[in-house]
This record gives sequence, structure tokens and C-alpha cells, in this order.
Amino acid sequence: MDSKQFRDAAKGAIDEIAAYYDNIEERPVLPSVTPGYLRPLIPDSAPEEGESWETIQSDIDRVIMPGLTHWQSPKFMAFFPCNSSFPAMLGDMYSGAFNAAAFNWICSPAITELETVVMDWVAKLIALPDAFLSQGEGGGIIQGTASEVIVTAVVAARERVIRRRLKDMPEGEEKMDAAADLRGKLVAMGSEHAHSSTQKAAIIAGTRFRTVSAPAENNYSVSAASLRKTIEESEAKGLIPFYFTATIGSTATCAVDDLAGIAELAKEYPDIWIHVDAAYAGSALVCPEYQHLCPPIAAFDSFNFNLHKWLLVNFDCSAFFIKRRKDLIDTYSITPSYLRNEFTEAGLVTDYRDWQIPLGRRFRSLKVWFVLRSYGVKGLQAFIRNHVQLGVSFGQQIKSRPDLFKITTEASFGLVTFQVTPNPPTPSGGKADKPNPRHEAYTSDFTPSGEAQYRDDCNQVTKRVYEKINSQGEFYISSSVVCGTYIIRIVSANTAAEEKYLKMVFDRLVEAVEEERGGKQAEDAKSA
Amino acid sequence: MDSKQFRDAAKGAIDEIAAYYDNIEERPVLPSVTPGYLRPLIPDSAPEEGESWETIQSDIDRVIMPGLTHWQSPKFMAFFPCNSSFPAMLGDMYSGAFNAAAFNWICSPAITELETVVMDWVAKLIALPDAFLSQGEGGGIIQGTASEVIVTAVVAARERVIRRRLKDMPEGEEKMDAAADLRGKLVAMGSEHAHSSTQKAAIIAGTRFRTVSAPAENNYSVSAASLRKTIEESEAKGLIPFYFTATIGSTATCAVDDLAGIAELAKEYPDIWIHVDAAYAGSALVCPEYQHLCPPIAAFDSFNFNLHKWLLVNFDCSAFFIKRRKDLIDTYSITPSYLRNEFTEAGLVTDYRDWQIPLGRRFRSLKVWFVLRSYGVKGLQAFIRNHVQLGVSFGQQIKSRPDLFKITTEASFGLVTFQVTPNPPTPSGGKADKPNPRHEAYTSDFTPSGEAQYRDDCNQVTKRVYEKINSQGEFYISSSVVCGTYIIRIVSANTAAEEKYLKMVFDRLVEAVEEERGGKQAEDAKSA
Repeated sequence: MDSKQFRDAAKGAIDEIAAYYDNIEERPVLPSVTPGYLRPLIPDSAPEEGESWETIQSDIDRVIMPGLTHWQSPKFMAFFPCNSSFPAMLGDMYSGAFNAAAFNWICSPAITELETVVMDWVAKLIALPDAFLSQGEGGGIIQGTASEVIVTAVVAARERVIRRRLKDMPEGEEKMDAAADLRGKLVAMGSEHAHSSTQKAAIIAGTRFRTVSAPAENNYSVSAASLRKTIEESEAKGLIPFYFTATIGSTATCAVDDLAGIAELAKEYPDIWIHVDAAYAGSALVCPEYQHLCPPIAAFDSFNFNLHKWLLVNFDCSAFFIKRRKDLIDTYSITPSYLRNEFTEAGLVTDYRDWQIPLGRRFRSLKVWFVLRSYGVKGLQAFIRNHVQLGVSFGQQIKSRPDLFKITTEASFGLVTFQVTPNPPTPSGGKADKPNPRHEAYTSDFTPSGEAQYRDDCNQVTKRVYEKINSQGEFYISSSVVCGTYIIRIVSANTAAEEKYLKMVFDRLVEAVEEERGGKQAEDAKSA
Repeated sequence: MDSKQFRDAAKGAIDEIAAYYDNIEERPVLPSVTPGYLRPLIPDSAPEEGESWETIQSDIDRVIMPGLTHWQSPKFMAFFPCNSSFPAMLGDMYSGAFNAAAFNWICSPAITELETVVMDWVAKLIALPDAFLSQGEGGGIIQGTASEVIVTAVVAARERVIRRRLKDMPEGEEKMDAAADLRGKLVAMGSEHAHSSTQKAAIIAGTRFRTVSAPAENNYSVSAASLRKTIEESEAKGLIPFYFTATIGSTATCAVDDLAGIAELAKEYPDIWIHVDAAYAGSALVCPEYQHLCPPIAAFDSFNFNLHKWLLVNFDCSAFFIKRRKDLIDTYSITPSYLRNEFTEAGLVTDYRDWQIPLGRRFRSLKVWFVLRSYGVKGLQAFIRNHVQLGVSFGQQIKSRPDLFKITTEASFGLVTFQVTPNPPTPSGGKADKPNPRHEAYTSDFTPSGEAQYRDDCNQVTKRVYEKINSQGEFYISSSVVCGTYIIRIVSANTAAEEKYLKMVFDRLVEAVEEERGGKQAEDAKSA
């Protein structure tokens, strides 16, 4: 393909992509394919002779489209959003054109330097404490995903505590043995509702992992007291807690840990690296009404949020901010001869490869720069506030039908979690001859075993309704289990999101519950 | 930016990108900016109001272009290439449009399924043993870079050896303590010329690391005997060797370790995970004349090469093949409630997140699919053979001037390494009044200290010539140090590479050496 052919092919692709976005709400959000659908559609090896672009492009509709889940559809309300935007796509186009494995400054100075400046823009945009700006001892780096960031932080934390504890030992075998002994005693910690990435990071780092309790009565948040308890229990066993992931916006319910309390506690434990994972909810910090969350972060070691979730930058783009970049470089820097150059040796430039696990790097700051400039601060705030409001209003709808639903957690950063309430039997234990409209009747004479039965019934019916919605393929929602409670979680926060789609999904939920009750009731009647 | 504006903006960007490629050889390959150039060119925070695309786009020429190193220029001959191609760019455009954090099958079935099939295409294309195909116990996954792959392999190897050694212990604290003890004894190994990523991976995994000797007299390759020696030395110290990176195409010289010999040795050490890193040179395996390297790989655990280096797929794209995918899943699989789904639970689908460190994934197989189809097997073979031939012919040029250069390693996968020979003093130790055209005269009465002096002189002059070429900014080449020898390494293997540019760089080298000799001689004369 020469550059003339590329011009034609790429412009055709642009038209297709624009049309895909123009009509995305018309597609079922979930594909109807079954596992293994794709293999029979294409040959089992690469062609001997090159094929024309027309042939290749026509396979997008034939082979790819039927197997896509449409994350940009307004009917996608599962997990967290993974927003794309046109300016970000333009950034990626140029990034692809300037293709480079930019592992140090001289490999393409613009790639390093734009990243440093744009990460400062991002830090200011979300009101991060000044310690995380590049002009002091800290700074920001773009990594792929929150899970990569957390591995990077856990491993750096592991090595930092070892360096500190063994700082007086001379280098050599004895020190290596002592370091190995220490590594075996280290404990990483995360909320019981923190993302699984902290547990996985501990596996990768080869350390132990303990969850910190965050019970329903504390709205699924970690309190300082709860963290202290886990630290003390670990220490009592002769173990060394060295890392904790605090969360702004937990995966299941968007809970926020008690950052102010944890910041106080952190003073007593300077060897524990505290990382704040705000993967999804961090984007809301562009709005002043959320920035009260930021000051305590000054007490912590690192922070990340994913611009690819809620801030319109195409996947992948996780902004990782570090208070003392030396804490990363001391672990990750190895400079072999073929990577040496005068600029790095003179300490004039940032070599981001020493802040991360991989060596090579893409030019990801370009898409961030384009998005921040194209939307402006006000545009980004409006984007976030719209979704926050959609969440509030969806929560109100759920609460308008207490006969069918009960809220588990109120709208938080646009996310609402709730349960379906079961069809109550009559208090006598016999079968109701018609559905009781208020589930409170069900719970009016609770005994301990009755309560357990009720919880179990709630979980079962919630799961059935959840599965019914997704099996229809029109909307995609997700579920989770928190402290034994099976919840449906709905968050509508991409570019195409609109109130009307939340009303539609609410109607589908009501229909599904009613059908479930009718069906369940009919079944119960039959078996009675 | 709405979809209409995007169509216009993107088509303008396509024209700019095509023009960039059409005229890339006219730009100096290295930028002339100094560290810190970019910050004064842009504001210090994001704008409040959104900006127009015209404003943003004009900054590419003003802010970015002056700071780019042009890896696609035919004058880029440093490191290894990082090839882009138009079909790969088209793949990335669609991938960006179908933006998703595809961490499991249902998140977008096409993303998982195309990757499985296309990695099978790649395995067949490079004649990997059948064990690495997906339809048995193995399969391929796209990861970002070789360094990520190697961390993934080292950590999986670490956990595998621990699982095997502790398989009879019941789960619990005692087993965790025993595992911690074992981890402290583990030794990862790599050639002294292997990429630094193995050493870095050992740091990340928290294990020890030993280099395996690969001396000049063995052409910088690891022999089975050399690996055995490192294993035995480690075991004699009570340590447990658990991982080795074998290399096809080492970074400094493109050396190939003795795979057949190491495969024999591997039978004695089934607990040592052997990974083959063919990051750059692996692409040559598309040509049958290189496929004799492949059969021994059947004895090893895993293999990777970077399609983003030499196989026309834009960065990043490292193909990682595993013989028993269970070896990855047993370490990396954690399935929390919010990631469960019926397809995974039924074992019908591949969840690549369980084969890697991060959770989320991009749709990278699309660009691979487009490249393989657009070029076809024959097109890819022709692409590789052209560069192999360019290397051979450049080596011949270097050898045509034994008065100025000496080859360190012959052309290997297009890479030639060499030294500049120093301006010989007269045998009496006085100053020569004219340059001696043959460096052999220099070495005619070698004593041990004379030999050391000669080596040092070679290194010094080679370094000066290397620095002179790069300081001119027209060509970009790289250097390395192998076994105390400072070498220049030149490899011209991107799409724009042509014989004429290698002739040009050769002329520049000759001029630089002559200038150096003149300059050095003048200086010596002055100080005499």
C-alpha cells in the first residue's frame, strides 16, 4: 500500500468510523455470537499473496462487527465506561504516524517532554497537591492501565522498604539473603472492595496480601480504624505491612475510603507506601465540587486515574502521579551501555522507562493534549456533571418503585447499585394469591432465619433479573457481590449517554421484575 | 467535535500523515532541540474553553515536529527499527473506533477471537513448533513489548517452580512461609549480552539474577556448557535456578544462542523455564532460510518476538507464545465477582487477562491481521530479505576499508557491528609523520600492555567517530560495549531503507575517521 492508496483507504475508513458513531445506538449493545464464532469465518493461515484493501475492509463488517460489544453505545451501562472521543482518535492517528519505541529522551524528545508538561496540566486540572507536579521531586507518567500502575507501585514499595531497612548493610550475598528474608514477610493491603488488581499485584510482587474490612455499615469504605486493625494484626504475626491501595470510587459501589483519616494514620507508618487508586472516579476531580477529596492525597506516595475511563481519552491511558520519582527510579533504573546517552547521563532529561515496567513507550500524551484542548476545562466539567446528574436521576427512579427495588448504594459518581426485592410470601408461610406490592410486608416479622432467607431471596431474584436484561442484548449492565449482597450496578457515562436510555433500561428492569414475579408466582402456584 | 468535524479533521490529518511519509528522508533524522525545549512553547495549564481543531493541529508543526526523532526515516539506523506501515495504521484507526477495555471475552468477543486466530497465523508464518498453537495446550497472546513479556514469563516461572516444589503441602501460613523461603533462593539467568529486560524482570519478580557468559570467541552466543556452568555454580551455593532467557538476535550484535544445545540441556532441568527472546530477529523466521532455528524451540516454555520491530506492525505489538497456557493462568488468574460471566465459567473462551499482568486490553490483533493480509507471506519475506541483503552489502563496504575499520560481528539479520581502528603511532613509540594506512602495522609487535593500549585506542576512536556521526543529526546510529569492546552498530531495516542511504552513511563514516585522524594527528603534532 503506497501513500496514495493509504490516503484513499484511510479516508474511506474515516467515513465508516464517523458513520459507526452516528448510528451506534441502533445496534444491540451485546453481540449474539457464541464462543468460537470467528475461526470458521477466516482462513487458517495468512495468505501467500497480498490482498487488496477493499477485500480486507469488507471483512470488518463480515467478521468483526458481529462480534463487537459496543462500549460507546448509550445502552452500554456495565463495568465502568471506556470513553473514546474524536480528538483522542486524532491524537492516536498522529501517534501511529510518528511511530517510535520511545524509551528515552533522545528517542524522540517531543514524546517525553509533552508527557511531562501534559501530566502537569492533568495534575492541576484535578487539583492534585503540588508535590505531584514535575517541577519538584514528583511528576506524572502515562501508563496503560490501573492494574499496571498498581503493580509498578507495589514492586517499588517492596524495594523501598527493603532499601530502608537494610541501608546500613554492605552490598553482597549477605544483604541479598537479608532482602530475600524481608520480602517473604511483606504484606500488601487493599480494601475488601478494592479492585482485584491489588491482589494480583501482590502475587506478581511475590508478597502476601491482606484485605482490609470495609463493611456495609461504613458504606463499603475503609476507615482508618479498619486499616490500623489490619496493620496491627499483620505486625503481631511478625509480618511487615508495606503497601496499601486506598480507593476513590471502588469498583463495585464507587465507595471512597476515609482519605483524611488514613492520611493521619500514615504519619505513624512512614514505611507503608499508600497509593490512591481513583481509576474511574478520579475524572470527577476536574469539578471543584469534588476537589475536597484532594488535600489528603498530599500525605500519600502515589495516585492514579484512568483518563480512558471517564475523561474521553481512548484506551489505554492511566495517569500515574508519584510524589518522589526517586522511589520509582531506585527500583526500575538499569542503564545498559546501548541505552546510554549524554542527555540522560547529565541528568537533564526524564527517562520514563525508569518509572515503569516496560522499556518502550508510545506517544500517548498527544491524545491527552488534544482532548484537554478540544474540550477545555469547562467542557470536561460539563461532561462529568451530566453523568453525575444522570446517576442521581436514575437513583430516583429506582427509589420510586420500592415495591420492586431497593437501593444498595446511592448514586456515586454516576453509579447506582440496587437489588430487586423478592415476591413476598404471605406472613403465614402460605402462598400469596396476588403479589404484595410492598416488600416491607415480607420483612415485618423477621426472625434470624427469616432474615437469612430474605437476603438469599433478594440475591437470587436480583441475579435472575440481571441475567434477563443482559440476555436480551439491548442493554449491557453488570452485577457484583458486596459483603454477601448480590447487586446490579448501572452507570451510564459515555459520550452518547442520555436520560432517555436510562428511562428505557428502567422500564426493562420493571418488566423483567414483573415477569419474574408473574413467572415465579405461577411456578409457586403450580408446585403448591 | 462532532462527527462532521471529525470527518474533515481526520481527512486533513491523513493528508498530513501521507505527506510526512512521502518526504521523510528530507528531514534530519535527529532533532536539534535541547532538553526542556517544549515547555516554553505551550501554556502551563489546560485552556478553560475548548480550542478549535485548526489551532490544535497547527501546533503539531510548531511544537511537536521539531522534537521528533524520525524512526521511519531511511537515515535511522540506530537500535533496532520500529517499523510502521499503512495497513497497521488503518488497523489502529478501527481499533480506536471500537474502543473497549476488553478484559474478557464478553467485553468484545471479536477482540479475543481474532487475537487467538491471528496469533495462530503468526505461529505458522514463523514455523513455530505446533505446541505453541492455540488448539493444543498452548497459544499466543499480544503483549506490548518484549520487556513486559519477559516480566510475565519470569513471574510465572517463579510461581511454577514454587507450586511444583510445594505441591504436597496443604494451603496455609506454613506453605506461605515455605514459598517465601523458596522465592528468596531463586535465580533467573540471561546471557551477558541479553537485553537488560531479563535483569529488570528479576528485580520486579524479586529474585536473584546471574549472567551467563557468552564470550567473543563464541561470537557472543551462550553455549549449553556456559549455561550449565551458571546453573551448577548457583546450585552449589544452595540457590535454585528457575528461569533462563535464550536469545535469537542479541541486542548488541544479533547473536543467536546455541538453541539446540540448550534444548538438550533443558531435559536435565525441567524446572527451569526457558524463554526465547527473538524480539528483533524473530521476524526473519518468516523466511524458510531461517526456519532451521525453530525446531529446538519445542523444548522450551515460551517464545516472543516484536512485530513492531521488523514486521511492519506499529508499536506496540509483541507476540508471546506459550507452550502450556496453564503455566500462565495458574499465576495470573483471579476472577472477582464483577468479572464473572457464563462463558468464562464454562471454559468456552480464552480470557487473555489471565495470561498477562494488566487487566484491560486493546484490539491489537486488527493491525496484525491487516498487515499479514496486505503484504501476504511473500511480501513479508521480500521485505525481510531486502534488509538482510542491505546488511551484507554494508558489511562488505566496511571490510573494503581495513585501514579504517574492522568488523566485530558480520552482518546478522541486517545488523553489522564494527570498530574504527586508531591512527597508528610508529613502532618506535614516536609520532608518525603520516597516517599509516594499515592498522596491522600498529599491532605488529604486540606486547600485553601494547595490546591493552591498542584496545583502548580502538574504543576511544570508535566512540569519537560514533558521537561525531550522531552530532551531525543527518543519520542516527547506535553503539554498544561487548566484552570491553566499544562497537558501532548499524542496521537499516525500515520501509524506507535503501542501499543508497547505507552508502551515504558509509561515506560519512569515512569522512569522520579521516577528520578524526587528521585532527588527532594535528593535535599530537602540536603536543609533541
